[in-house]
Amino acid sequence: MSKGGIFIISGPSGSGKDTLLVELFKKRPDIKFSISSITRKMREGEKEGEKYNFISREKFEQMLENDLLLEYNIYAGNYYGTPKLPVLEASENGVDMIIEVDVNGAANIRKKLPQAISIFIMPPSYKELRRRLSGRGTETEVVIDERMHIALSEITRATEYDYIVVNEDINTAVSDIISVIDHSRLNIKRQKQLIDEVLKNVES
Amino acid sequence: MSKGGIFIISGPSGSGKDTLLVELFKKRPDIKFSISSITRKMREGEKEGEKYNFISREKFEQMLENDLLLEYNIYAGNYYGTPKLPVLEASENGVDMIIEVDVNGAANIRKKLPQAISIFIMPPSYKELRRRLSGRGTETEVVIDERMHIALSEITRATEYDYIVVNEDINTAVSDIISVIDHSRLNIKRQKQLIDEVLKNVES
Repeated sequence: MSKGGIFIISGPSGSGKDTLLVELFKKRPDIKFSISSITRKMREGEKEGEKYNFISREKFEQMLENDLLLEYNIYAGNYYGTPKLPVLEASENGVDMIIEVDVNGAANIRKKLPQAISIFIMPPSYKELRRRLSGRGTETEVVIDERMHIALSEITRATEYDYIVVNEDINTAVSDIISVIDHSRLNIKRQKQLIDEVLKNVES
Repeated sequence: MSKGGIFIISGPSGSGKDTLLVELFKKRPDIKFSISSITRKMREGEKEGEKYNFISREKFEQMLENDLLLEYNIYAGNYYGTPKLPVLEASENGVDMIIEVDVNGAANIRKKLPQAISIFIMPPSYKELRRRLSGRGTETEVVIDERMHIALSEITRATEYDYIVVNEDINTAVSDIISVIDHSRLNIKRQKQLIDEVLKNVES
């Protein structure tokens, strides 16, 4: 059995990444989602083990000490991290797994798992990004400008990714991601083992 | 109209690359093949403009001086090169083009055309490679060993490529190459322009 692929997905606010992932998992329940471990309190509508595992600060710091996180970050005094073992386990079992992280998290995971394939979700244009970040029109220009600034600074790092999927039409974007996942076995990052095998078998 | 993709295809003797390309162009006549310019004499069965343009040494050296070659090499005293203009023209016209070159040629083209996507054709195993290179069983062990040595040294450079297609079953391998070509618009190398556009439109 071949190993499952590890896919890092990032995209700025306004890229429509969250809706896109919901649609993707509806279409392809065989693809697994990496559940983040976080130390903040559960909010209304959230469920344990759905998108997050809500754990204590002590347990998180223990994971950190034991090198059980692929990446982590602190927002507003709370830890957010990607546990390592479920990702490696899925891969060993031939299951494709998606990890949703920001550009910094993606860079950290790439260092630990160079075989991971990364996909950046892009808004179709500057105008459309601004429209999406304007929300219901109740935000001030200053707030919108600040959001735009953050989104654009993330977009400048899109070149660190293997693939870019433009989220103009959601169905097309979902199909694009699925095609990257389904064709990833041809990708060099997942093929290094094969080259080694052909070269090593000199004795066989 | 989006630009056509430029695809570099390499594979050692014994990878079955030539048969594979014949089948590929049968299935997809819309994909163009880059015709090499060469200075050796035409052999029986060859046609001008099919796989090669047979040109004079003087004309080749003129192309070299005018920087009209993406890469070139000398075998047995003859020049072999990839003309630049047909490749750029196809790309501008939205036509996908395949350039078949060895690992050194591929490295040189990558320097000039970083947007080119490269595919390495791999034999399925060491044993099968040796079987294919043994020909009709009339070759001595020394000749076969020499061929194996050259093929294996090329395989060690397969990691320079974006994709690896294992040629175990020819139909699967042809489909694999077609899927790389058809999905290449998602590849980061072809998307840099798009990122620039979103970032540049700050004034719009």
